[in-house]
Amino acid sequence: MRTVDLIQRKRDGEELSVEEIALLVNGYTDGSIPDYQVAAFLMAVYNNGMTDREVSAMTDAMIASGESVDLSEIPGLKVDKHSTGGVGDKTSLIAAPIAAAAGVVVPMISGRALGHTGGTLDKLEAIPGFRTNLTIEEFRAQLATHKLAFIGQTDEVAPADGKFYALRDATATVESIPLIASSIMSKKMAVGLDAIVLDVKVGSGAFMKRQVEARKLAQMMVGIGRRLDRRVQALITDMNQPLGYAVGNALEVMEVSQTLQNAGPTDLTRISVELAARMIFLGKMAASLDDARKLAEQKIVDGSGYRKLKEVIQAQGGNPQVLDRFELLPNATGVREITAPRGGYVSAIDAEEVGRAAMMMGAGRTTKEDGIDPAVGIILEVKVGQRVDAGSILCRLYYTSEEHVEEAAETVEDAFRMAATPPDPRELILEVVS
Amino acid sequence: MRTVDLIQRKRDGEELSVEEIALLVNGYTDGSIPDYQVAAFLMAVYNNGMTDREVSAMTDAMIASGESVDLSEIPGLKVDKHSTGGVGDKTSLIAAPIAAAAGVVVPMISGRALGHTGGTLDKLEAIPGFRTNLTIEEFRAQLATHKLAFIGQTDEVAPADGKFYALRDATATVESIPLIASSIMSKKMAVGLDAIVLDVKVGSGAFMKRQVEARKLAQMMVGIGRRLDRRVQALITDMNQPLGYAVGNALEVMEVSQTLQNAGPTDLTRISVELAARMIFLGKMAASLDDARKLAEQKIVDGSGYRKLKEVIQAQGGNPQVLDRFELLPNATGVREITAPRGGYVSAIDAEEVGRAAMMMGAGRTTKEDGIDPAVGIILEVKVGQRVDAGSILCRLYYTSEEHVEEAAETVEDAFRMAATPPDPRELILEVVS
Repeated sequence: MRTVDLIQRKRDGEELSVEEIALLVNGYTDGSIPDYQVAAFLMAVYNNGMTDREVSAMTDAMIASGESVDLSEIPGLKVDKHSTGGVGDKTSLIAAPIAAAAGVVVPMISGRALGHTGGTLDKLEAIPGFRTNLTIEEFRAQLATHKLAFIGQTDEVAPADGKFYALRDATATVESIPLIASSIMSKKMAVGLDAIVLDVKVGSGAFMKRQVEARKLAQMMVGIGRRLDRRVQALITDMNQPLGYAVGNALEVMEVSQTLQNAGPTDLTRISVELAARMIFLGKMAASLDDARKLAEQKIVDGSGYRKLKEVIQAQGGNPQVLDRFELLPNATGVREITAPRGGYVSAIDAEEVGRAAMMMGAGRTTKEDGIDPAVGIILEVKVGQRVDAGSILCRLYYTSEEHVEEAAETVEDAFRMAATPPDPRELILEVVS
Repeated sequence: MRTVDLIQRKRDGEELSVEEIALLVNGYTDGSIPDYQVAAFLMAVYNNGMTDREVSAMTDAMIASGESVDLSEIPGLKVDKHSTGGVGDKTSLIAAPIAAAAGVVVPMISGRALGHTGGTLDKLEAIPGFRTNLTIEEFRAQLATHKLAFIGQTDEVAPADGKFYALRDATATVESIPLIASSIMSKKMAVGLDAIVLDVKVGSGAFMKRQVEARKLAQMMVGIGRRLDRRVQALITDMNQPLGYAVGNALEVMEVSQTLQNAGPTDLTRISVELAARMIFLGKMAASLDDARKLAEQKIVDGSGYRKLKEVIQAQGGNPQVLDRFELLPNATGVREITAPRGGYVSAIDAEEVGRAAMMMGAGRTTKEDGIDPAVGIILEVKVGQRVDAGSILCRLYYTSEEHVEEAAETVEDAFRMAATPPDPRELILEVVS
């Protein structure tokens, strides 16, 4: 079977066999299939999609391309949480400590910011001293002791995915549902997890702009998990406005601390508790989902989630005091206020624009090679539905260099939409796919 | 403007500007845009097509990538003929000498066989001594003296097309109408032609399987020509059964000789005369198309087309006697007869299958690097519509090695379909697009 014939069949909308998909993934990984053929294949997949069988074969082949992280010697069920990425999305840093405090083992393999969305690793690295480059041995040891550890994607786990991702990024094939699904699931399933809770974001600030696409992605990932005998649940949640008030790495760590002390924004707390509850339920630390929700809430109220995060920061070399003394975090040097041009109701806050504005100031990266500035970001003063007077503050921009502030301010101003009447309330958790 | 954004816009069905298309073609040609990005772009074009403006921009950029062959010092109008490729399609070797004998200057830049379709250069090289690698200077000199010269694609003319074609071949993007149109027209328009006659083949033995696609390709090429101020006419002709009786390089040269001596197959003669007539008309050697047809027929009857081909064979180093003494051509060493399993009417002869069978015996090539055997091929004994008895000969396979004869024989047997009643007669020339 020649590679060009496989491309042609995918181009013509035919289904490839499990062996054929494996041939492509392996050939690309070992260098025997050139990148230009894989690029054409990816564009054909972008156009024609993949069947459930194909996407599972793709995932399996990418898992098989690297080493698996064996966690079987650590007692207890292992449950991870993954978000498809949003603006102000710091739920991992809240849900994971809560679930771990409730007894679930949480091996968090996290990603970095790309484009207008943030990444858990970058947020953690805003904490002075925090090490995300644990060895697999350190990762295992910390999980055994603390039940929670944060680590970055390693070269050993699903290396094929790394190669595919870089090629997708250069060929306008990132936004393909089966390619996103197999990329996420191969990284997650290469680690010895028992279950996974997915947060599929939908809206202007997410990769998936429409709920029907988000649902398809969620169903595909749940299906991959099922065929691999892992329990997977996916929440589809709204990402039309930033989650919480803080956008930017150090600023988000502060909001995490507040939320774990039961003083966080309503929307952020709500989603974090729901994610933690499902981790607890799938980790069999509660008999029902309702019990799991109560347990998650309790872990906020009694401060045990907060203490768990401190414990883990300490274990990974960071200064746990940052959660109490925010001045120990990297601080911005300048603040710029954005005010309402007229009174009315906030009808929308375009999450993508807010994310882009934060990125312009240095909170995110345009290419994988860019550095980021942990101190900068945006704090919203209002959320959608609130009434504001003309001249009242909509948000504050925190910056360390004047260079891109003007551009960022204009972008943020465009993000706020005002109306004379209050907008219809929006559901935060839109669906559950399991 | 980043390349990935151009790919994305083409992926999403948007139109790229003339400058953007030029950027892509130039970037690929000079190596600044990597082949994997171009591969993704080509697959996006395969899916979403190109507008007339885009396809003209693509053609212009490919022409500009190389040198133009200036023929302005040769007196007379220059008219070329191009076929999109078929099985048994040797019309170039008939129409070109006829048109040249009628006074038209015919600079034939020809191609090689690929897949199941034959190539003019390979047929000519079946003639002992024939040189297709003339220099541009030799080409010009021969055109001035003999009005007809055959040459292969050179690296200097539209080199971008050569690069694009190789990439398309490896990425299953050959069969894209705008990519075919710009590829053909860039090669043709880089030579100082005044007009071009196109033979767009449609049917099982052609790249275009459906007439609607063939029409689209013809219209696109005529449009490109019009925007470049060249007169272009396209015939859409049937390629559901092989053209003439002979398939295979030396065998086809024999049939060319017979046809130029007014003893050729009806279908081959008919299309060759029509193509020659249009070359003569566009070359202004006749006042009307009807006059041009009469002139073309006369050039067969009086033997001047035949003498013109001999003259050109001699000029390009070949032995002109091969047209009279076929034993001077490479000869097969074995013959295998295929007989009718039962009596009835021949309802179809699948041209692609016949072409593939000839290729298996060595008449064609699977990859560009394969050599070909000029002696081998197939001679049909019957054509569609003929009545045959059980056991009568349908065709003969001429081979030089026993190796693939069995496989080829089975393929050819499958190509012949029989029916109890005669099939409806089929038009040979389906449409004219101009």
